[in-house]
Amino acid sequence: MTTPEITAALLIIGDEILSGRTKDKNIGTLADSLTAIGIRLREVRIIGDEEDAIVEAVNTLRETHTYVFTTGGIGPTHDDITADSLAKAFGVSIDVNPTVAEEMEKVYAQRGVEMTPARLRMARIPDGAELVRNSVSIAPGFVLGNVIVMAGVPSIMAAMFSDVAPRLKRGAKLYSETLMVRRPEADISDLFAAHQKMYPDVIMGSYPSFLDGKFKTELVLRATNEQNLKKVVAELRAKLVEKALI
Amino acid sequence: MTTPEITAALLIIGDEILSGRTKDKNIGTLADSLTAIGIRLREVRIIGDEEDAIVEAVNTLRETHTYVFTTGGIGPTHDDITADSLAKAFGVSIDVNPTVAEEMEKVYAQRGVEMTPARLRMARIPDGAELVRNSVSIAPGFVLGNVIVMAGVPSIMAAMFSDVAPRLKRGAKLYSETLMVRRPEADISDLFAAHQKMYPDVIMGSYPSFLDGKFKTELVLRATNEQNLKKVVAELRAKLVEKALI
Repeated sequence: MTTPEITAALLIIGDEILSGRTKDKNIGTLADSLTAIGIRLREVRIIGDEEDAIVEAVNTLRETHTYVFTTGGIGPTHDDITADSLAKAFGVSIDVNPTVAEEMEKVYAQRGVEMTPARLRMARIPDGAELVRNSVSIAPGFVLGNVIVMAGVPSIMAAMFSDVAPRLKRGAKLYSETLMVRRPEADISDLFAAHQKMYPDVIMGSYPSFLDGKFKTELVLRATNEQNLKKVVAELRAKLVEKALI
Repeated sequence: MTTPEITAALLIIGDEILSGRTKDKNIGTLADSLTAIGIRLREVRIIGDEEDAIVEAVNTLRETHTYVFTTGGIGPTHDDITADSLAKAFGVSIDVNPTVAEEMEKVYAQRGVEMTPARLRMARIPDGAELVRNSVSIAPGFVLGNVIVMAGVPSIMAAMFSDVAPRLKRGAKLYSETLMVRRPEADISDLFAAHQKMYPDVIMGSYPSFLDGKFKTELVLRATNEQNLKKVVAELRAKLVEKALI
Protein backbone atom coordinates (compact mmCIF):
# COMPACT_ATOMS: atom_id res chain seq x y z
CA MET A 1 0.00 0.00 0.00
CA THR A 2 1.23 3.51 -0.77
CA THR A 3 1.15 6.33 1.78
CA PRO A 4 -0.58 8.63 1.12
CA GLU A 5 -2.59 6.62 -1.36
CA ILE A 6 -3.72 8.40 -4.52
CA THR A 7 -6.98 6.84 -5.74
CA ALA A 8 -9.08 7.21 -8.85
CA ALA A 9 -12.48 6.29 -10.20
CA LEU A 10 -13.33 5.97 -13.88
CA LEU A 11 -16.77 6.92 -15.19
CA ILE A 12 -17.58 5.72 -18.70
CA ILE A 13 -20.50 7.53 -20.27
CA GLY A 14 -22.32 6.05 -23.25
CA ASP A 15 -25.40 4.01 -24.18
CA GLU A 16 -23.34 2.27 -26.87
CA ILE A 17 -21.22 0.43 -24.30
CA LEU A 18 -24.27 -0.72 -22.33
CA SER A 19 -26.08 -1.99 -25.43
CA GLY A 20 -23.01 -3.97 -26.47
CA ARG A 21 -22.70 -2.09 -29.76
CA THR A 22 -19.28 -0.71 -28.81
CA LYS A 23 -16.82 -2.81 -26.83
CA ASP A 24 -14.98 -0.67 -24.30
CA LYS A 25 -11.23 -0.45 -24.68
CA ASN A 26 -10.57 2.45 -22.32
CA ILE A 27 -10.88 0.59 -19.00
CA GLY A 28 -7.88 -1.64 -19.67
CA THR A 29 -5.75 1.18 -21.09
CA LEU A 30 -6.48 3.56 -18.25
CA ALA A 31 -6.07 0.86 -15.57
CA ASP A 32 -2.57 0.14 -16.94
CA SER A 33 -1.67 3.83 -17.26
CA LEU A 34 -2.80 4.68 -13.73
CA THR A 35 -1.12 1.67 -12.14
CA ALA A 36 2.12 2.64 -13.90
CA ILE A 37 2.18 6.06 -12.22
CA GLY A 38 1.13 4.85 -8.77
CA ILE A 39 -2.52 5.93 -8.88
CA ARG A 40 -4.82 3.20 -7.64
CA LEU A 41 -7.96 2.73 -9.71
CA ARG A 42 -10.56 1.69 -7.13
CA GLU A 43 -13.83 1.79 -9.02
CA VAL A 44 -15.27 1.94 -12.53
CA ARG A 45 -18.83 2.81 -13.48
CA ILE A 46 -20.47 2.69 -16.87
CA ILE A 47 -23.68 4.67 -17.27
CA GLY A 48 -25.85 5.88 -20.16
CA ASP A 49 -26.19 9.33 -21.72
CA GLU A 50 -28.54 10.65 -19.02
CA GLU A 51 -27.92 13.92 -17.22
CA ASP A 52 -29.25 12.85 -13.80
CA ALA A 53 -27.18 9.68 -13.79
CA ILE A 54 -24.01 11.57 -14.80
CA VAL A 55 -24.51 14.31 -12.17
CA GLU A 56 -25.13 11.76 -9.42
CA ALA A 57 -22.19 9.53 -10.34
CA VAL A 58 -19.76 12.46 -10.67
CA ASN A 59 -20.81 13.96 -7.35
CA THR A 60 -20.56 10.62 -5.54
CA LEU A 61 -17.20 9.65 -6.99
CA ARG A 62 -15.43 12.99 -6.69
CA GLU A 63 -16.05 13.01 -2.93
CA THR A 64 -14.37 9.66 -2.37
CA HIS A 65 -11.41 9.61 -4.77
CA THR A 66 -8.40 11.80 -5.45
CA TYR A 67 -9.34 11.89 -9.14
CA VAL A 68 -12.33 10.98 -11.29
CA PHE A 69 -11.72 10.33 -14.99
CA THR A 70 -14.63 10.37 -17.41
CA THR A 71 -14.68 9.14 -20.99
CA GLY A 72 -17.32 9.76 -23.64
CA GLY A 73 -20.07 12.24 -24.40
CA ILE A 74 -18.00 15.29 -25.43
CA GLY A 75 -18.64 15.16 -29.18
CA PRO A 76 -20.93 17.36 -31.28
CA THR A 77 -24.20 15.39 -31.20
CA HIS A 78 -27.42 15.70 -29.23
CA ASP A 79 -26.48 12.78 -26.96
CA ASP A 80 -23.13 14.37 -26.01
CA ILE A 81 -24.08 15.90 -22.69
CA THR A 82 -21.03 15.30 -20.51
CA ALA A 83 -19.74 18.92 -20.40
CA ASP A 84 -23.16 20.35 -19.51
CA SER A 85 -23.74 17.62 -16.92
CA LEU A 86 -20.35 18.34 -15.33
CA ALA A 87 -21.20 22.05 -15.07
CA LYS A 88 -24.46 21.07 -13.37
CA ALA A 89 -22.70 18.67 -10.98
CA PHE A 90 -20.29 21.42 -9.90
CA GLY A 91 -22.94 24.18 -9.94
CA VAL A 92 -20.95 26.34 -12.36
CA SER A 93 -22.05 27.96 -15.61
CA ILE A 94 -21.03 26.74 -19.04
CA ASP A 95 -20.72 28.47 -22.38
CA VAL A 96 -18.66 28.41 -25.56
CA ASN A 97 -15.05 29.06 -24.56
CA PRO A 98 -13.82 31.88 -26.86
CA THR A 99 -10.21 30.64 -26.97
CA VAL A 100 -11.28 27.13 -27.95
CA ALA A 101 -13.83 28.41 -30.50
CA GLU A 102 -11.19 30.62 -32.13
CA GLU A 103 -8.69 27.75 -32.37
CA MET A 104 -11.33 25.45 -33.81
CA GLU A 105 -12.34 28.04 -36.41
CA LYS A 106 -8.72 28.48 -37.47
CA VAL A 107 -8.15 24.73 -37.88
CA TYR A 108 -11.46 24.20 -39.67
CA ALA A 109 -10.73 27.13 -42.05
CA GLN A 110 -7.39 25.52 -42.95
CA ARG A 111 -9.18 22.26 -43.67
CA GLY A 112 -11.98 24.01 -45.59
CA VAL A 113 -14.51 22.73 -43.05
CA GLU A 114 -17.50 24.80 -41.94
CA MET A 115 -17.91 25.87 -38.28
CA THR A 116 -21.42 24.56 -37.61
CA PRO A 117 -23.47 25.00 -34.41
CA ALA A 118 -22.84 21.30 -33.78
CA ARG A 119 -19.05 21.78 -33.94
CA LEU A 120 -19.34 24.81 -31.68
CA ARG A 121 -20.91 22.51 -29.04
CA MET A 122 -17.47 20.96 -28.63
CA ALA A 123 -16.14 24.34 -27.47
CA ARG A 124 -18.55 24.40 -24.51
CA ILE A 125 -16.32 24.31 -21.43
CA PRO A 126 -17.56 24.76 -17.83
CA ASP A 127 -16.42 27.91 -16.01
CA GLY A 128 -13.14 27.46 -14.17
CA ALA A 129 -12.07 24.34 -16.08
CA GLU A 130 -8.55 23.84 -17.44
CA LEU A 131 -8.24 22.48 -20.98
CA VAL A 132 -6.87 19.05 -21.84
CA ARG A 133 -5.34 18.97 -25.34
CA ASN A 134 -4.77 16.04 -27.62
CA SER A 135 -2.78 15.43 -30.75
CA VAL A 136 -5.59 13.73 -32.68
CA SER A 137 -8.50 16.19 -32.78
CA ILE A 138 -8.87 19.90 -32.10
CA ALA A 139 -11.77 19.53 -29.64
CA PRO A 140 -10.35 19.54 -26.08
CA GLY A 141 -11.20 17.72 -22.87
CA PHE A 142 -10.97 19.54 -19.56
CA VAL A 143 -10.17 19.31 -15.87
CA LEU A 144 -12.83 20.64 -13.50
CA GLY A 145 -11.89 20.36 -9.83
CA ASN A 146 -10.61 16.80 -9.44
CA VAL A 147 -12.53 15.51 -12.47
CA ILE A 148 -10.74 14.89 -15.76
CA VAL A 149 -13.11 14.80 -18.75
CA MET A 150 -11.84 12.93 -21.81
CA ALA A 151 -13.16 11.70 -25.16
CA GLY A 152 -14.48 8.16 -25.63
CA VAL A 153 -12.65 7.37 -28.90
CA PRO A 154 -9.69 5.30 -27.60
CA SER A 155 -6.92 7.04 -29.60
CA ILE A 156 -8.17 10.47 -28.48
CA MET A 157 -8.63 9.29 -24.88
CA ALA A 158 -5.03 8.03 -24.78
CA ALA A 159 -3.72 11.31 -26.23
CA MET A 160 -5.70 13.31 -23.67
CA PHE A 161 -4.39 11.15 -20.83
CA SER A 162 -0.82 11.82 -22.01
CA ASP A 163 -1.52 15.55 -21.87
CA VAL A 164 -2.99 15.48 -18.38
CA ALA A 165 -0.72 12.86 -16.75
CA PRO A 166 2.14 15.28 -15.91
CA ARG A 167 -0.34 17.42 -13.92
CA LEU A 168 -1.43 14.55 -11.64
CA LYS A 169 -0.20 13.74 -8.15
CA ARG A 170 1.42 10.32 -8.14
CA GLY A 171 1.61 7.63 -5.48
CA ALA A 172 4.43 5.22 -4.84
CA LYS A 173 4.86 2.86 -7.77
CA LEU A 174 3.44 -0.60 -7.20
CA TYR A 175 5.85 -3.33 -8.32
CA SER A 176 4.36 -6.58 -9.55
CA GLU A 177 5.66 -10.15 -9.87
CA THR A 178 3.82 -13.12 -11.35
CA LEU A 179 4.25 -16.85 -10.74
CA MET A 180 2.55 -19.17 -13.21
CA VAL A 181 1.22 -22.47 -11.88
CA ARG A 182 -0.12 -25.07 -14.33
CA ARG A 183 -2.77 -26.29 -11.91
CA PRO A 184 -6.31 -25.35 -10.92
CA GLU A 185 -6.50 -22.56 -8.38
CA ALA A 186 -7.77 -24.86 -5.63
CA ASP A 187 -4.52 -26.88 -5.63
CA ILE A 188 -2.52 -23.90 -4.38
CA SER A 189 -5.05 -21.75 -2.58
CA ASP A 190 -4.48 -22.97 1.00
CA LEU A 191 -0.74 -22.49 0.70
CA PHE A 192 -1.28 -19.11 -0.98
CA ALA A 193 -3.72 -17.90 1.68
CA ALA A 194 -1.22 -18.81 4.40
CA HIS A 195 1.48 -16.84 2.58
CA GLN A 196 -0.83 -13.80 2.31
CA LYS A 197 -1.45 -14.00 6.06
CA MET A 198 2.32 -13.96 6.70
CA TYR A 199 2.84 -10.89 4.51
CA PRO A 200 -0.22 -8.63 4.75
CA ASP A 201 1.65 -5.67 3.17
CA VAL A 202 2.00 -7.51 -0.11
CA ILE A 203 -1.18 -7.52 -2.24
CA MET A 204 -1.68 -11.09 -3.46
CA GLY A 205 -4.20 -12.23 -6.05
CA SER A 206 -4.65 -15.49 -7.91
CA TYR A 207 -6.12 -15.54 -11.41
CA PRO A 208 -7.35 -18.81 -12.86
CA SER A 209 -7.93 -19.45 -16.51
CA PHE A 210 -9.21 -22.36 -18.49
CA LEU A 211 -8.03 -22.97 -22.03
CA ASP A 212 -8.14 -26.08 -24.21
CA GLY A 213 -9.34 -28.15 -21.27
CA LYS A 214 -6.40 -27.14 -19.05
CA PHE A 215 -6.53 -25.04 -15.92
CA LYS A 216 -3.75 -22.68 -15.04
CA THR A 217 -3.39 -20.10 -12.29
CA GLU A 218 -1.33 -16.94 -12.19
CA LEU A 219 -0.25 -15.75 -8.77
CA VAL A 220 0.32 -12.02 -8.77
CA LEU A 221 2.09 -10.27 -5.89
CA ARG A 222 2.32 -6.50 -5.69
CA ALA A 223 4.05 -4.11 -3.29
CA THR A 224 5.68 -0.70 -3.23
CA ASN A 225 8.92 -2.08 -1.76
CA GLU A 226 10.58 -3.90 -4.64
CA GLN A 227 13.25 -5.65 -2.58
CA ASN A 228 10.78 -6.99 -0.05
CA LEU A 229 8.49 -8.11 -2.88
CA LYS A 230 11.27 -10.16 -4.48
CA LYS A 231 12.00 -11.83 -1.15
CA VAL A 232 8.31 -12.73 -0.57
CA VAL A 233 7.99 -14.09 -4.12
CA ALA A 234 11.15 -16.20 -3.77
CA GLU A 235 9.79 -17.69 -0.55
CA LEU A 236 6.46 -18.51 -2.20
CA ARG A 237 8.23 -20.14 -5.11
CA ALA A 238 10.29 -22.27 -2.68
CA LYS A 239 7.11 -23.44 -0.92
CA LEU A 240 5.50 -24.37 -4.25
CA VAL A 241 8.60 -26.24 -5.37
CA GLU A 242 8.72 -28.11 -2.04
CA LYS A 243 5.16 -29.37 -2.61
CA ALA A 244 5.95 -30.13 -6.27
CA LEU A 245 3.27 -27.67 -7.40
CA ILE A 246 5.43 -25.63 -9.75
CA MET B 1 -38.57 1.73 -25.10
CA THR B 2 -40.13 -1.49 -23.88
CA THR B 3 -43.13 -1.59 -21.56
CA PRO B 4 -42.66 -2.77 -18.87
CA GLU B 5 -38.92 -2.30 -19.16
CA ILE B 6 -36.73 -5.06 -17.74
CA THR B 7 -33.45 -3.54 -16.58
CA ALA B 8 -30.17 -4.95 -15.33
CA ALA B 9 -26.97 -3.85 -13.67
CA LEU B 10 -23.67 -5.71 -13.90
CA LEU B 11 -21.26 -5.77 -10.96
CA ILE B 12 -17.74 -6.96 -11.79
CA ILE B 13 -15.73 -7.94 -8.72
CA GLY B 14 -11.95 -8.18 -8.88
CA ASP B 15 -8.78 -6.23 -8.08
CA GLU B 16 -7.18 -7.70 -11.21
CA ILE B 17 -9.48 -5.72 -13.53
CA LEU B 18 -8.83 -2.46 -11.67
CA SER B 19 -5.05 -2.93 -11.71
CA GLY B 20 -5.12 -3.57 -15.46
CA ARG B 21 -3.65 -7.05 -15.05
CA THR B 22 -6.73 -8.72 -16.50
CA LYS B 23 -8.66 -7.09 -19.34
CA ASP B 24 -12.39 -7.57 -18.85
CA LYS B 25 -14.22 -9.49 -21.55
CA ASN B 26 -17.50 -10.08 -19.73
CA ILE B 27 -19.02 -6.59 -20.12
CA GLY B 28 -19.23 -6.83 -23.90
CA THR B 29 -20.48 -10.43 -23.88
CA LEU B 30 -23.15 -9.81 -21.29
CA ALA B 31 -24.24 -6.49 -22.88
CA ASP B 32 -24.81 -8.35 -26.17
CA SER B 33 -26.58 -11.29 -24.49
CA LEU B 34 -28.92 -9.08 -22.47
CA THR B 35 -29.76 -6.79 -25.40
CA ALA B 36 -30.60 -9.88 -27.47
CA ILE B 37 -33.27 -10.99 -24.98
CA GLY B 38 -34.77 -7.55 -24.38
CA ILE B 39 -33.16 -6.83 -21.02
CA ARG B 40 -31.73 -3.34 -20.88
CA LEU B 41 -28.31 -3.11 -19.22
CA ARG B 42 -28.39 0.29 -17.54
CA GLU B 43 -25.28 0.33 -15.39
CA VAL B 44 -21.99 -1.47 -14.86
CA ARG B 45 -19.73 -1.19 -11.83
CA ILE B 46 -16.29 -2.66 -11.31
CA ILE B 47 -15.07 -2.86 -7.71
CA GLY B 48 -12.28 -4.61 -5.82
CA ASP B 49 -12.33 -7.69 -3.61
CA GLU B 50 -13.61 -5.80 -0.53
CA GLU B 51 -16.60 -6.97 1.45
CA ASP B 52 -17.98 -3.52 2.33
CA ALA B 53 -17.80 -2.36 -1.27
CA ILE B 54 -19.54 -5.52 -2.52
CA VAL B 55 -22.32 -5.35 0.08
CA GLU B 56 -22.97 -1.68 -0.63
CA ALA B 57 -22.97 -2.05 -4.41
CA VAL B 58 -25.22 -5.14 -4.35
CA ASN B 59 -27.72 -3.49 -2.02
CA THR B 60 -27.83 -0.27 -4.06
CA LEU B 61 -28.17 -1.98 -7.42
CA ARG B 62 -30.72 -4.65 -6.49
CA GLU B 63 -33.15 -1.94 -5.36
CA THR B 64 -33.10 -0.14 -8.68
CA HIS B 65 -32.90 -2.87 -11.32
CA THR B 66 -34.93 -5.94 -12.23
CA TYR B 67 -31.73 -8.02 -12.14
CA VAL B 68 -28.17 -7.63 -10.90
CA PHE B 69 -25.51 -9.87 -12.44
CA THR B 70 -22.18 -10.29 -10.68
CA THR B 71 -19.00 -11.82 -12.07
CA GLY B 72 -15.87 -12.82 -10.19
CA GLY B 73 -14.84 -13.81 -6.70
CA ILE B 74 -16.43 -17.26 -6.42
CA GLY B 75 -13.26 -19.35 -6.69
CA PRO B 76 -11.36 -21.19 -3.94
CA THR B 77 -8.83 -18.55 -2.82
CA HIS B 78 -8.68 -16.15 0.10
CA ASP B 79 -9.69 -13.18 -2.08
CA ASP B 80 -12.84 -14.95 -3.33
CA ILE B 81 -15.42 -13.38 -1.04
CA THR B 82 -18.43 -12.83 -3.29
CA ALA B 83 -20.68 -15.59 -1.87
CA ASP B 84 -20.09 -14.54 1.75
CA SER B 85 -20.58 -10.86 0.85
CA LEU B 86 -23.87 -11.68 -0.90
CA ALA B 87 -25.12 -13.52 2.19
CA LYS B 88 -24.22 -10.46 4.25
CA ALA B 89 -25.95 -8.10 1.80
CA PHE B 90 -29.16 -10.14 2.02
CA GLY B 91 -28.85 -10.84 5.75
CA VAL B 92 -29.00 -14.62 5.29
CA SER B 93 -26.67 -17.32 6.57
CA ILE B 94 -24.19 -19.19 4.43
CA ASP B 95 -22.59 -22.59 4.72
CA VAL B 96 -21.32 -25.46 2.61
CA ASN B 97 -24.25 -26.71 0.55
CA PRO B 98 -24.38 -30.52 1.05
CA THR B 99 -25.72 -31.26 -2.46
CA VAL B 100 -23.00 -29.23 -4.10
CA ALA B 101 -20.26 -30.65 -1.85
CA GLU B 102 -21.39 -34.20 -2.65
CA GLU B 103 -21.38 -33.53 -6.39
CA MET B 104 -17.96 -31.93 -6.21
CA GLU B 105 -16.54 -34.86 -4.23
CA LYS B 106 -17.90 -37.30 -6.81
CA VAL B 107 -16.37 -35.42 -9.74
CA TYR B 108 -13.04 -34.88 -7.96
CA ALA B 109 -12.89 -38.58 -7.01
CA GLN B 110 -13.36 -39.52 -10.68
CA ARG B 111 -10.53 -37.17 -11.61
CA GLY B 112 -8.33 -38.38 -8.77
CA VAL B 113 -8.30 -34.89 -7.28
CA GLU B 114 -8.34 -34.27 -3.54
CA MET B 115 -11.27 -32.39 -1.90
CA THR B 116 -9.34 -29.69 -0.04
CA PRO B 117 -10.79 -27.05 2.33
CA ALA B 118 -10.08 -24.54 -0.45
CA ARG B 119 -12.21 -26.49 -2.94
CA LEU B 120 -14.94 -26.83 -0.33
CA ARG B 121 -15.11 -23.02 -0.22
CA MET B 122 -16.66 -23.17 -3.68
CA ALA B 123 -19.60 -25.12 -2.25
CA ARG B 124 -20.52 -22.24 0.10
CA ILE B 125 -23.97 -21.11 -1.06
CA PRO B 126 -26.14 -18.55 0.78
CA ASP B 127 -29.38 -19.85 2.31
CA GLY B 128 -32.32 -19.69 -0.07
CA ALA B 129 -30.23 -19.39 -3.22
CA GLU B 130 -30.92 -21.41 -6.38
CA LEU B 131 -27.93 -22.96 -8.11
CA VAL B 132 -26.61 -21.90 -11.53
CA ARG B 133 -24.83 -24.73 -13.32
CA ASN B 134 -22.23 -24.57 -16.07
CA SER B 135 -20.75 -27.04 -18.50
CA VAL B 136 -17.13 -26.07 -17.87
CA SER B 137 -16.49 -26.51 -14.13
CA ILE B 138 -18.29 -28.28 -11.30
CA ALA B 139 -18.40 -25.24 -8.98
CA PRO B 140 -21.79 -23.53 -9.40
CA GLY B 141 -22.99 -19.93 -9.40
CA PHE B 142 -26.29 -19.03 -7.78
CA VAL B 143 -29.35 -16.81 -7.88
CA LEU B 144 -30.22 -15.04 -4.62
CA GLY B 145 -33.31 -12.84 -4.84
CA ASN B 146 -32.84 -10.86 -8.06
CA VAL B 147 -29.04 -11.20 -8.01
CA ILE B 148 -27.32 -13.69 -10.32
CA VAL B 149 -23.81 -14.61 -9.15
CA MET B 150 -21.47 -15.93 -11.85
CA ALA B 151 -17.78 -16.77 -12.27
CA GLY B 152 -15.27 -14.28 -13.69
CA VAL B 153 -13.53 -16.64 -16.13
CA PRO B 154 -15.23 -15.68 -19.43
CA SER B 155 -15.96 -19.22 -20.68
CA ILE B 156 -17.52 -20.19 -17.34
CA MET B 157 -19.44 -16.89 -17.11
CA ALA B 158 -20.93 -17.51 -20.58
CA ALA B 159 -21.91 -21.08 -19.66
CA MET B 160 -23.56 -19.88 -16.44
CA PHE B 161 -25.47 -17.19 -18.32
CA SER B 162 -26.79 -19.85 -20.72
CA ASP B 163 -28.05 -21.84 -17.76
CA VAL B 164 -29.80 -18.93 -16.09
CA ALA B 165 -31.16 -17.12 -19.18
CA PRO B 166 -34.31 -19.30 -19.57
CA ARG B 167 -35.31 -18.34 -16.00
CA LEU B 168 -35.24 -14.58 -16.67
CA LYS B 169 -38.15 -12.28 -17.49
CA ARG B 170 -37.62 -10.74 -20.90
CA GLY B 171 -38.57 -7.36 -22.31
CA ALA B 172 -39.60 -6.55 -25.85
CA LYS B 173 -36.70 -7.11 -28.22
CA LEU B 174 -34.97 -3.94 -29.31
CA TYR B 175 -34.32 -3.90 -33.07
CA SER B 176 -31.30 -2.02 -34.30
CA GLU B 177 -30.31 -0.46 -37.65
CA THR B 178 -27.01 1.21 -38.49
CA LEU B 179 -26.16 3.83 -41.15
CA MET B 180 -22.47 4.39 -41.86
CA VAL B 181 -21.40 7.92 -42.80
CA ARG B 182 -17.82 8.54 -43.92
CA ARG B 183 -17.65 11.96 -42.32
CA PRO B 184 -16.85 13.44 -38.93
CA GLU B 185 -19.77 13.37 -36.52
CA ALA B 186 -20.15 17.16 -36.59
CA ASP B 187 -21.10 17.13 -40.29
CA ILE B 188 -24.31 15.25 -39.61
CA SER B 189 -25.14 16.06 -36.01
CA ASP B 190 -27.58 18.96 -36.58
CA LEU B 191 -29.58 16.91 -39.08
CA PHE B 192 -29.43 13.88 -36.79
CA ALA B 193 -30.58 15.83 -33.71
CA ALA B 194 -33.56 17.19 -35.67
CA HIS B 195 -34.47 13.63 -36.70
CA GLN B 196 -34.27 12.45 -33.06
CA LYS B 197 -36.62 15.28 -32.09
CA MET B 198 -39.14 14.14 -34.71
CA TYR B 199 -39.06 10.53 -33.48
CA PRO B 200 -38.51 10.49 -29.70
CA ASP B 201 -39.58 6.81 -29.46
CA VAL B 202 -36.59 5.68 -31.49
CA ILE B 203 -33.31 5.60 -29.54
CA MET B 204 -30.68 7.29 -31.73
CA GLY B 205 -26.96 7.37 -31.08
CA SER B 206 -24.02 8.41 -33.21
CA TYR B 207 -20.63 6.76 -32.77
CA PRO B 208 -17.57 8.40 -34.25
CA SER B 209 -14.30 6.68 -34.89
CA PHE B 210 -10.95 7.80 -36.20
CA LEU B 211 -8.75 5.41 -38.11
CA ASP B 212 -5.81 6.03 -40.46
CA GLY B 213 -6.47 9.74 -40.37
CA LYS B 214 -10.12 9.37 -41.47
CA PHE B 215 -13.20 10.09 -39.44
CA LYS B 216 -16.32 8.01 -39.81
CA THR B 217 -19.59 7.98 -37.91
CA GLU B 218 -22.07 5.20 -37.36
CA LEU B 219 -25.64 6.24 -36.75
CA VAL B 220 -27.47 3.60 -34.73
CA LEU B 221 -31.26 3.65 -34.40
CA ARG B 222 -33.07 1.26 -32.05
CA ALA B 223 -36.75 0.60 -31.35
CA THR B 224 -39.07 -2.21 -30.31
CA ASN B 225 -41.33 -1.68 -33.36
CA GLU B 226 -39.35 -3.05 -36.27
CA GLN B 227 -41.58 -1.69 -39.01
CA ASN B 228 -41.58 1.85 -37.61
CA LEU B 229 -37.80 1.63 -37.15
CA LYS B 230 -37.28 0.78 -40.82
CA LYS B 231 -39.44 3.74 -41.87
CA VAL B 232 -37.53 6.19 -39.63
CA VAL B 233 -34.17 4.86 -40.91
CA ALA B 234 -35.27 5.16 -44.56
CA GLU B 235 -36.31 8.76 -43.94
CA LEU B 236 -32.97 9.56 -42.31
CA ARG B 237 -31.11 7.99 -45.22
CA ALA B 238 -33.14 10.12 -47.68
CA LYS B 239 -32.25 13.30 -45.77
CA LEU B 240 -28.54 12.37 -45.78
CA VAL B 241 -28.63 11.59 -49.51
CA GLU B 242 -30.37 14.91 -50.19
CA LYS B 243 -27.52 16.81 -48.50
CA ALA B 244 -24.93 14.57 -50.23
CA LEU B 245 -23.68 13.37 -46.84
CA ILE B 246 -23.93 9.65 -47.54
